[in-house]
Amino acid sequence: MTQSGAENQVRTIIEAWADAVRRHDYAGVLAHHDQDIVMFDVPPPFQSRGLDAYRKTWDLFFGCQRPSDAFDIEDIAITAGDDVAFAVAVMRCGAPDATFQFRLTIGLRKVDGDWFITHEHHSVPATE
Amino acid sequence: MTQSGAENQVRTIIEAWADAVRRHDYAGVLAHHDQDIVMFDVPPPFQSRGLDAYRKTWDLFFGCQRPSDAFDIEDIAITAGDDVAFAVAVMRCGAPDATFQFRLTIGLRKVDGDWFITHEHHSVPATE
Repeated sequence: MTQSGAENQVRTIIEAWADAVRRHDYAGVLAHHDQDIVMFDVPPPFQSRGLDAYRKTWDLFFGCQRPSDAFDIEDIAITAGDDVAFAVAVMRCGAPDATFQFRLTIGLRKVDGDWFITHEHHSVPATE
Repeated sequence: MTQSGAENQVRTIIEAWADAVRRHDYAGVLAHHDQDIVMFDVPPPFQSRGLDAYRKTWDLFFGCQRPSDAFDIEDIAITAGDDVAFAVAVMRCGAPDATFQFRLTIGLRKVDGDWFITHEHHSVPATE
């Protein structure tokens, strides 16, 4: 696997994940996530550990975001080795008349030939 | 290099960085950072790109944090491959009577045998 090959694999997984978020497709959102994922989300709680807690963060998000709203990767840089990778992205989401940007970092590990997301960190700058 | 060997190298770099932050030691803070680092910090701006912009984020921080204040790694998990790694941490900082937790993700790349930090993402949950 070349470095660009690994980068392309990771990019495909992240683009499919974002597309699943746009469609409120839980199975697609969770398709490449590790059981022990650690999620740092934009709203509280401070952290969510494990796939069940991660899934609940999307209950909250889908409650205030319609399937037609934006969840777009505006800019992404992927750093991928043989079996560890991370992605740094600027994202845009929200209703057409009220979109906003957030920062996103994703960590991945390759296990038995497949990449799994083990960490997501979503945030906006603090306003206080 | 075993996986645990790489993890230990990355842990040593991050612990030395946090110690340099506590001492307001700019040279130590910047010692293992890539020229093209992308910083997502707790306060605005939304992002800081490049080592000069990264250094400025510490001007802001050191202006309101004394050398005796906390900048402590409360919990850290490191995922390290041969030449790509990331760390996920719960941090605590601030004056003794007003410490607070923040979330930290660090991305690293190994170049010519040395690890360099190419990304930091510091945040607190949004309060709005």
